[in-house]
Amino acid sequence: MPAALLQHPFMSLRALTECQAQALVEAMLTFELALAEVQEARGAVPEGAGQRMRDVLASHPFDVEAIAAGVASGGNAAIPFVKQGRAALPEDLKRYWHQGATSQDVLDTALMLLLQPRLAAIDALLVRCRTAAIPLMRQHAATPMVGRTLMQQALPLAFGVKVAHWALGLEQARRRLAAVELPVQFGGAVGVHSGLDGPGWDDLGLACMDALAERLGLAVPVLPWHTDRQPIHALATALDAVSGAAEKLALDVALLTQTEIGEVAEPAGEGMGESSSMPHKRNPVRCALIRGAARQVHGHATVILNAAAQPLERGLGEWHAEWAPLIDAALLVEGALEQTAVLLEGLEVHPQAMARNLAATGGGIMAEPASKLLAPVLGQDAAKRISAEAAEAARESGRPYAEVLGAHPEVAGRLAPETLAQTTDPALYLGSSQRQVQRAIAWLEET
Amino acid sequence: MPAALLQHPFMSLRALTECQAQALVEAMLTFELALAEVQEARGAVPEGAGQRMRDVLASHPFDVEAIAAGVASGGNAAIPFVKQGRAALPEDLKRYWHQGATSQDVLDTALMLLLQPRLAAIDALLVRCRTAAIPLMRQHAATPMVGRTLMQQALPLAFGVKVAHWALGLEQARRRLAAVELPVQFGGAVGVHSGLDGPGWDDLGLACMDALAERLGLAVPVLPWHTDRQPIHALATALDAVSGAAEKLALDVALLTQTEIGEVAEPAGEGMGESSSMPHKRNPVRCALIRGAARQVHGHATVILNAAAQPLERGLGEWHAEWAPLIDAALLVEGALEQTAVLLEGLEVHPQAMARNLAATGGGIMAEPASKLLAPVLGQDAAKRISAEAAEAARESGRPYAEVLGAHPEVAGRLAPETLAQTTDPALYLGSSQRQVQRAIAWLEET
Amino acid sequence: MPAALLQHPFMSLRALTECQAQALVEAMLTFELALAEVQEARGAVPEGAGQRMRDVLASHPFDVEAIAAGVASGGNAAIPFVKQGRAALPEDLKRYWHQGATSQDVLDTALMLLLQPRLAAIDALLVRCRTAAIPLMRQHAATPMVGRTLMQQALPLAFGVKVAHWALGLEQARRRLAAVELPVQFGGAVGVHSGLDGPGWDDLGLACMDALAERLGLAVPVLPWHTDRQPIHALATALDAVSGAAEKLALDVALLTQTEIGEVAEPAGEGMGESSSMPHKRNPVRCALIRGAARQVHGHATVILNAAAQPLERGLGEWHAEWAPLIDAALLVEGALEQTAVLLEGLEVHPQAMARNLAATGGGIMAEPASKLLAPVLGQDAAKRISAEAAEAARESGRPYAEVLGAHPEVAGRLAPETLAQTTDPALYLGSSQRQVQRAIAWLEET
Amino acid sequence: MPAALLQHPFMSLRALTECQAQALVEAMLTFELALAEVQEARGAVPEGAGQRMRDVLASHPFDVEAIAAGVASGGNAAIPFVKQGRAALPEDLKRYWHQGATSQDVLDTALMLLLQPRLAAIDALLVRCRTAAIPLMRQHAATPMVGRTLMQQALPLAFGVKVAHWALGLEQARRRLAAVELPVQFGGAVGVHSGLDGPGWDDLGLACMDALAERLGLAVPVLPWHTDRQPIHALATALDAVSGAAEKLALDVALLTQTEIGEVAEPAGEGMGESSSMPHKRNPVRCALIRGAARQVHGHATVILNAAAQPLERGLGEWHAEWAPLIDAALLVEGALEQTAVLLEGLEVHPQAMARNLAATGGGIMAEPASKLLAPVLGQDAAKRISAEAAEAARESGRPYAEVLGAHPEVAGRLAPETLAQTTDPALYLGSSQRQVQRAIAWLEET
Repeated sequence: MPAALLQHPFMSLRALTECQAQALVEAMLTFELALAEVQEARGAVPEGAGQRMRDVLASHPFDVEAIAAGVASGGNAAIPFVKQGRAALPEDLKRYWHQGATSQDVLDTALMLLLQPRLAAIDALLVRCRTAAIPLMRQHAATPMVGRTLMQQALPLAFGVKVAHWALGLEQARRRLAAVELPVQFGGAVGVHSGLDGPGWDDLGLACMDALAERLGLAVPVLPWHTDRQPIHALATALDAVSGAAEKLALDVALLTQTEIGEVAEPAGEGMGESSSMPHKRNPVRCALIRGAARQVHGHATVILNAAAQPLERGLGEWHAEWAPLIDAALLVEGALEQTAVLLEGLEVHPQAMARNLAATGGGIMAEPASKLLAPVLGQDAAKRISAEAAEAARESGRPYAEVLGAHPEVAGRLAPETLAQTTDPALYLGSSQRQVQRAIAWLEET
Repeated sequence: MPAALLQHPFMSLRALTECQAQALVEAMLTFELALAEVQEARGAVPEGAGQRMRDVLASHPFDVEAIAAGVASGGNAAIPFVKQGRAALPEDLKRYWHQGATSQDVLDTALMLLLQPRLAAIDALLVRCRTAAIPLMRQHAATPMVGRTLMQQALPLAFGVKVAHWALGLEQARRRLAAVELPVQFGGAVGVHSGLDGPGWDDLGLACMDALAERLGLAVPVLPWHTDRQPIHALATALDAVSGAAEKLALDVALLTQTEIGEVAEPAGEGMGESSSMPHKRNPVRCALIRGAARQVHGHATVILNAAAQPLERGLGEWHAEWAPLIDAALLVEGALEQTAVLLEGLEVHPQAMARNLAATGGGIMAEPASKLLAPVLGQDAAKRISAEAAEAARESGRPYAEVLGAHPEVAGRLAPETLAQTTDPALYLGSSQRQVQRAIAWLEET
Repeated sequence: MPAALLQHPFMSLRALTECQAQALVEAMLTFELALAEVQEARGAVPEGAGQRMRDVLASHPFDVEAIAAGVASGGNAAIPFVKQGRAALPEDLKRYWHQGATSQDVLDTALMLLLQPRLAAIDALLVRCRTAAIPLMRQHAATPMVGRTLMQQALPLAFGVKVAHWALGLEQARRRLAAVELPVQFGGAVGVHSGLDGPGWDDLGLACMDALAERLGLAVPVLPWHTDRQPIHALATALDAVSGAAEKLALDVALLTQTEIGEVAEPAGEGMGESSSMPHKRNPVRCALIRGAARQVHGHATVILNAAAQPLERGLGEWHAEWAPLIDAALLVEGALEQTAVLLEGLEVHPQAMARNLAATGGGIMAEPASKLLAPVLGQDAAKRISAEAAEAARESGRPYAEVLGAHPEVAGRLAPETLAQTTDPALYLGSSQRQVQRAIAWLEET
Repeated sequence: MPAALLQHPFMSLRALTECQAQALVEAMLTFELALAEVQEARGAVPEGAGQRMRDVLASHPFDVEAIAAGVASGGNAAIPFVKQGRAALPEDLKRYWHQGATSQDVLDTALMLLLQPRLAAIDALLVRCRTAAIPLMRQHAATPMVGRTLMQQALPLAFGVKVAHWALGLEQARRRLAAVELPVQFGGAVGVHSGLDGPGWDDLGLACMDALAERLGLAVPVLPWHTDRQPIHALATALDAVSGAAEKLALDVALLTQTEIGEVAEPAGEGMGESSSMPHKRNPVRCALIRGAARQVHGHATVILNAAAQPLERGLGEWHAEWAPLIDAALLVEGALEQTAVLLEGLEVHPQAMARNLAATGGGIMAEPASKLLAPVLGQDAAKRISAEAAEAARESGRPYAEVLGAHPEVAGRLAPETLAQTTDPALYLGSSQRQVQRAIAWLEET
């Protein structure tokens, strides 16, 4: 697969390194050894068997290629892995290996084990983003820029508020993801611990499940969840929420970086954003990578949404369809956040460009406050009409809005020029920007 | 739109009745009147103005057709609604109407107000499902049925456990949805309360936002969230989780209702499930409606996932794309749950059919416990081979599995027939089924 | 449903009017009457029965409300419709009504009949777009504007080429949609014309199917396609392709309409694009409506992709899930195109703004041709470095790029100023723009 | 990435081997060398330069790792590849390398080159499926089985018709995919062949584009299609259609393979479908792999649908988001078809099980023809009622339907027992099954 060149750029390199096939094999082994040990503690496996298994298998050279080949016949990686493991064990231990487990127990748990450090890394990156955003918010709590709705200049706001929105989006997604639990899977063939539990077995099934969760640092589910995929749905959609928050930031940065706008720029870096043919260009490459990653995450999440309903005691394709989208989504989110963190930490902010753009319409974006100023004097409708006419005239003539407005026949002489000038000064019209920044910081710093 | 015949069947009729266009107009009016009142309480509107607005507008015959027509030019329903409202007010009140608000404030809040009773209705339906499931689980905590993985007979479990899975799925989704907050929206043109706040205005923007939330019974957001769509993402994906839980149940019921399986049936009802051409058929129509609804919900959720990133201070299509999918998703989920509740309350359960199917393979599904029984005597590999051979032979000959197994040359005489019979009795091999039912009920009854 | 205010704005009003529930009832009646007639022509219905049915039912007041209510019990609209029709017929005709048909035959065919005029309307709108685009392309075949890659200024192109891209996208999608066939559905209960065909019946099933197609103006399928949904997949994805082509145009127009760029504008219109709070704004509302519609279409298409595989002889929810997304997608595409056609017909183009933006970087976007000019003289690497340095210097100093470049110590005296000026003149650097416009027009005008 | 174990099972191993990163590098090189050669043929590159480039680079050890690393800074693989290539060339050739091209030209064309053999392989697999299906259809043109609608037994049909539906679905998708064109990409920085075309250059841009297409065996686009993604949309949705056709077959086979139904089985194979814990099981693993693959393809297609609209002259993330989904979709479709072909070639068909299931309702599925037989004698309503009552009674008593019906007080003596027996014999009630099989074969064999 040309993955290294087409897919990996969007993924975290660190995550990729930690998520090789070998890592999945190790996670499966971790599950099986822990299972033997919790069963040994409950007398279902002879004393010492768990340690003996570990001694044999911890350094056993599992044949990953053969496991990959075996997937095609068994339908999942656990089946050939379990076979290899059993073959490597001495005869008397074979029957205690994988005891009471089914391949979905192994694979679901191994996936959770693989995802655990990924969620931790994602959380750490989100904390990095938050840490980078707060000083930017403080610094620009009163930096005026133009607010744009439907991509048209609307009214001024402080740049710090825009950063606050990015930070709030990322932090909401962080808290949501942090609340998602990664449960252990252990239910046996049809999810009821056949052969491990029942009359005379003294609750060995659920007890082992609970003990496994504790030993592996995973959450305890109410019951095995082979075809109850609510945990996967919660996880995939929480990951998607993170991708959406990063994508919003990248979209804004890309728009504000446009040549004609130039209010912010991606941090400069050796070779970053260069074009293969145009020497003058500096492309917002990080934004492109984030947006490219996020869109792929949405596609992966769509697979999970459509695979939530799985038949009876095991999916027939629905379960299988989850694996790659789930792991890929995590790797893409982590990759996107690595870019996002660098973006926030090194974002170039150009207040002069913001000021230039605020002035671009001759102050016409201040038509709304002007209209409000005129309303008590001229009536609501006339005020709205006149302030709009003046905006049009100022844009066409290039004269300052306050001046054009003051010269309007229905206005002239009825309002002091200084009042008009002040009302149409963007820097005096930032509304609750500063308070919003304070409030956002207070919320971000709550833990 | 042929909606009444193609889309509505999947939706809740009650919800549809409560969600007519008129209801949206009322919700927008509720927002505007509450806004005037919280502004009045803070001195930004003259005393008594709020009540006077209410007197004029509460019974004002807003022209819904004209509002619909106006959407095309303004891009949303709030713009023509605000115009109509202003036109109906006496001159001196016009300027206090919609003061400091933008159309997205009106529409986002109105949507939240429309959704509030829908979420309550969905929650109530989910509680009804839970209430119906618990006695079913108790009653069938030891009713043996065959567990099926990849749709093949695997090993026995109790029917109560299957019901537990349905109930756990629905209840997890219920708790997730119950935790989703519906925030008020109020930020003005670019989200910073332009003209309402700033030096000299004494925090009127955020204070009004908070007061509005309280008055309307909505959640208080950290900041206005015009282009921070995390709340919408959380809501849409939580609704989708509910649809997935209902879909899982419908898939299982549909599979278990198949003519050849017949272990459960949808509740009978006058005309329910009849065919236009085949008098003998009783179609699982409720399952079809649930599955049809859930798939549409996934599509709507996909729109929301892809619209999470919205540009700068207002979406340019991304926001607009949310409205119908969000409302439709809620109406579809409510519709699906109305069917699900009836299904669970009236589900026909056929333990005899379950017993018949358990016996269908001549007991061959008991090959696994048989293999475990043989392993200490014959070794792991031989045990597995022999138990499988006997399963095949029993299936082909129609003789009981225990008998075929006992007659196998490598087994004969080495195990007592009673031991074999007991080991291969499904009703004695339900594992942790009963304990799982108890545990699930305890969790479901937690509040 | 608040559809009128939240969903309809994106849809074609004309299409909505033509697609009321009554229209679906009429389409179902059209199917049944045509069925009786083609059966009569083959002797399977007594002579004159078809006409008598038509006499009774053509003006029969079908009770749409009752049909809607009946959907809930039968699972689709055909079942209650067929019942009402049968009840209205005299006793001797009842058995020939719906003879050999199943509800999916009625509903699938009725959907195709509803969609037929919609596809014609969509085609006509796409032709309108093409007709509007060609003169724009001709007029601006040499109008220089800046090309933007990753939203950064790159190199010049003619505006006519951009229009050509919009037109090619729409026309490719038009041709694709025009090639999609709407097949009749007629297979009876399990798709093999049970009771109509077989030994002694003389091929009545397929013959009726073919004759029905001809009579209804629909395509002849190879076989009934109850669970072979390739025709629906082809239709839904072709509709989606149209939405994507319109969305591309809307995205470009929205970007070029940004206040700071202002190269094009939506056609002005009474009340179009006004803001509820900001008098100076003119929002690109048509773009927002197109983009809002297109995103919803993608969601609907996703439902169809995920419902392509339908079980055995009739879907259990998969089929049901198609109805609303399919009709809604068509109505949304038609709505989006109504906006697109108006956009293209009345687009305001501002060549002066294009010229202003071309000059915005002090000519720095001409660094690439400059680099090519310098390469033979200074070597590839030096040329690239110097042209980039001069771009940076021109941007910072505001001096013309040619001048800065000519003054560079490594360049000075080595190239004639006129050569430099000419090489860096955007209007002389439009590449194949004019030829592309000609070629595109030739292709568009092919039929 | 644990891709080898989680993702690859669903993909074609052959395809994976042919699509390593190295293959992408080779495809990029193929593009660049062909570009030099077509430019040389038109005098834009010195004579012999193309061959000299080929001599240097054909065996040049491109550093794939370094290219992968370079993607992160440039945003795509072409940028670091072009750099490496240029560095390896002698000084006098450097300026003719990548002349007039942009990185999207290289990458889009390289993707098309990678996909070309994949589409050929997919086509060949689809032909294999068709070849396997036709004899199955012929052999079972009159093999009666029960048709199932909404998964309930409905009426009989021939198994050959079901196979015909699978074959028609696959063949429709094959023809659709075969009609999709893979166009060359060549437009330069902003798509207008800047620096290659224009006054004095004599149409070098479009001429090179056309010549490149011919040399590379790709289709000639009307214009460069950097942000006109209709070709990608057509390709991705056509791939998705194939996945849907395979998924339909896998769903049917999985349903018919259920233990209680057992009408077909996946071909047996060493180790195929074994369970990690249950020796008696044979899982429909191929169906699971096909369904798992198809669901992932739908997710990838959803990404493409949502990326159809790309801004101005180059996507900012939208383009980047296409790469992995497009390649992955092709590899998954090819993988799914490898399974599908084997399934069809070796499918085990069990006519006895079909007969058993036809008899399962005591003939009650024949209620419809019985009703038709009774209608002229007893009236439409009574006939429907009685035939349904008898079906219920036969199911409950286990007596043959014809017998129960004949004994019904309203029927007894009014119809000859032989007539009843014949009317309720499924094998005589296969409708147009045989004709459908013939018609389908004729269509499949058309070329």
